[in-house]
Amino acid sequence: MNAPLKIGIAGLGTVGTSVFELLEENAALLAARLERPVTVTAVSARSKKDRGLNLEHVKWHDDPVALADDPGVDVVVELMGGAQGAAFDLIKRALENGKPVVTANKALLAARGGEIFQLLKSGKSTLSYEAAVAGGIPAIKTLREGLAANRINAVYGILNGTCNFILSQMRSTGGKFEDVLKEAQDKGYAEADPSFDIDGIDAAHKLSILSGLAFGCVPDPAAVRTRGIRDITAEDIAFADELGYRIKLLGIARVTPGGIEQSVAPCLVPTAIPMAHIDGAENAVCIDGGHAGKILITGAGAGGDATASAVVADIADIARGCAGLPFLGVTAPAKMQAADTNARIGSYFIRLTVLDKPGVIADVSAILRDCGVSMESILQRGRAPGHPVPVILTSHETVEGDMLEAVKKIGGLETSVAPPHLMRIETFENEAQQ
Amino acid sequence: MNAPLKIGIAGLGTVGTSVFELLEENAALLAARLERPVTVTAVSARSKKDRGLNLEHVKWHDDPVALADDPGVDVVVELMGGAQGAAFDLIKRALENGKPVVTANKALLAARGGEIFQLLKSGKSTLSYEAAVAGGIPAIKTLREGLAANRINAVYGILNGTCNFILSQMRSTGGKFEDVLKEAQDKGYAEADPSFDIDGIDAAHKLSILSGLAFGCVPDPAAVRTRGIRDITAEDIAFADELGYRIKLLGIARVTPGGIEQSVAPCLVPTAIPMAHIDGAENAVCIDGGHAGKILITGAGAGGDATASAVVADIADIARGCAGLPFLGVTAPAKMQAADTNARIGSYFIRLTVLDKPGVIADVSAILRDCGVSMESILQRGRAPGHPVPVILTSHETVEGDMLEAVKKIGGLETSVAPPHLMRIETFENEAQQ
Repeated sequence: MNAPLKIGIAGLGTVGTSVFELLEENAALLAARLERPVTVTAVSARSKKDRGLNLEHVKWHDDPVALADDPGVDVVVELMGGAQGAAFDLIKRALENGKPVVTANKALLAARGGEIFQLLKSGKSTLSYEAAVAGGIPAIKTLREGLAANRINAVYGILNGTCNFILSQMRSTGGKFEDVLKEAQDKGYAEADPSFDIDGIDAAHKLSILSGLAFGCVPDPAAVRTRGIRDITAEDIAFADELGYRIKLLGIARVTPGGIEQSVAPCLVPTAIPMAHIDGAENAVCIDGGHAGKILITGAGAGGDATASAVVADIADIARGCAGLPFLGVTAPAKMQAADTNARIGSYFIRLTVLDKPGVIADVSAILRDCGVSMESILQRGRAPGHPVPVILTSHETVEGDMLEAVKKIGGLETSVAPPHLMRIETFENEAQQ
Repeated sequence: MNAPLKIGIAGLGTVGTSVFELLEENAALLAARLERPVTVTAVSARSKKDRGLNLEHVKWHDDPVALADDPGVDVVVELMGGAQGAAFDLIKRALENGKPVVTANKALLAARGGEIFQLLKSGKSTLSYEAAVAGGIPAIKTLREGLAANRINAVYGILNGTCNFILSQMRSTGGKFEDVLKEAQDKGYAEADPSFDIDGIDAAHKLSILSGLAFGCVPDPAAVRTRGIRDITAEDIAFADELGYRIKLLGIARVTPGGIEQSVAPCLVPTAIPMAHIDGAENAVCIDGGHAGKILITGAGAGGDATASAVVADIADIARGCAGLPFLGVTAPAKMQAADTNARIGSYFIRLTVLDKPGVIADVSAILRDCGVSMESILQRGRAPGHPVPVILTSHETVEGDMLEAVKKIGGLETSVAPPHLMRIETFENEAQQ
């Protein structure tokens, strides 16, 4: 048996604790698979409170950055989180010291991928980040290795379990967004301040990392057009159902003639595709590769145990001497060429809130016609003469810029009592062929 | 740029031709990702017929085994197929010569995994086989690397695209097995002699490889209880639909208290799980890992381009120096401990063909009661007094041995005019926790 691989863990929150426990629980199995033992030799955390871990033979560092200098640590595992401060300092020092780093820190990779790339340029060390995207799902490995032969057309998916739980729950109970969010908070699926999840920011971080790797570019979360799920109503979900769709918060990065288009937004997906049936706190990542076709991976997108599985998979690669792949898929990443999102061609779902009066639909139809938008269906359920009612429109394929113009004009109608709510319909049938 | 990696391809059928074309088409992309060019320097095939490939600078060998001895070949890619003969000889010689081998040959790995293991024992070379299971889906990499941290409870899925196409088509058209098979043959989805696919043999080969890797055992296809889809009727599919299920040919390998249970058989899966919605020629592999939970991967399970993607992924790992993982997951594989399939506990679907006469259901119910089987539902659609009618039963959880006994007794009833058709209902809710 070879010498043990010595691990230093920075951060003993849910994920850090799970990694420690997993390495202990599956120690014999891992040693057999990796042909060497893996041992935690040092840790660092904010408090010394009891977490039920046996730290007797483990060195404690108050300063996480000290892990990078500890000669008893071969691999630094950064699980503190945060794009600024100690997490970055620790990663920087470890890489400078030639120690491989494993991190789950999506915020840091999304915001500072360019800096990380510069730190890795010397080739002295490596950085692994399977756990940064989609929890236990091996999305990074699939993209970088499993589909290495393919020119990627698109990568997209359900990247935030909190939002998927809320949307699934709204559908199955018919509940309102606010009530279901409250339930998710009570169950621990959503934070007390939920905005990071429900406004799509977390998904945008993950998407920018997937996109960087898929297209060999430095991640640029600012280039991700980001919308969350606060505006989704019980009616939206019921009408989508009636039309044969599910509403999912999707992160989508795709090659278009004008560059890479990146968006996080609630979309309608047809019930005929498996993505529509990924419910609850699950995540899903679909990679549309030229030769491999569409590969979809689904599983637990969060949680200590699932994320620990991804962290330890990275450690396993290091133990096997296989972690030295280019950080962004290629050795010379390019700048992300952002596409004009107004140029998107596709179908749309619009919920109008209009007064139930004769002539309203005629006004709306005239605007759509003038903007060159072709309607596919129009639904008004129930009557309430003189009062606001929801009216649902779906369009045939149209240019997003034209659709936005139409929506703006419709919102300006006197009979329109609330801003129209526009969502993309995504069928993923015709990804750009490069 | 590093020196090119020189590839020798044995077999220029659909997959071999696609590999050649992919390496040419994506040459620049691969060189950027792998930090070295990948070039085909030699090939061998049965005939020199024109395949539209430019072989001008490529050495031709009439004898495939000569590829293993060609000093201009670094990596041997075996795409001839067949468990006996030249394919094995080539692999053996290449491994003895210290050359890494890439193969898509599931029949050979399933039948002769133990011999291959012995050949690899010296550590002189490596064997990669992503393309042997589930075409373009990186199932092997996910199991061996992405989920390396997990003690696997079960691995299962849709492993034969021909069967999945036939079953999906029977459902969407209401057609009979024979007619849909004919259509699949006309479309090129099924062979002229379809038995290898529709009798479950191909799926059993793939399952035994997945199972070997998941549980660190030498593959043993003889231990896979194998049934195909010839007996599935249009009524089975319609009744399953009515009860909220889809019929899928599933390969399942799971840990049970009595050992590893391996089966290939048509099963009913609830429409609530994504596996039910994998239609057409797609494949799907689900890995139930202890910590990661259930990871499902779906995509194209066959076809030249998709399979070539998997072959080139293996070549990419070799180019990156990352192919040296243990062939069967661990360095010391065990013998597969087969479980008694009669001990399986689960629910069942039974189609009876009985005379429509008073008292038949009472007889059937009495047999089920005597065998300790609890019925969940019973369906008889339409009446035909005195003539044979299909009657569908579903059971609550029961022991398979008891169910088989009951089915045998029911088949012996005077009113039973055809053998009862039994299928497992698989919900995948309670995989064994080890």
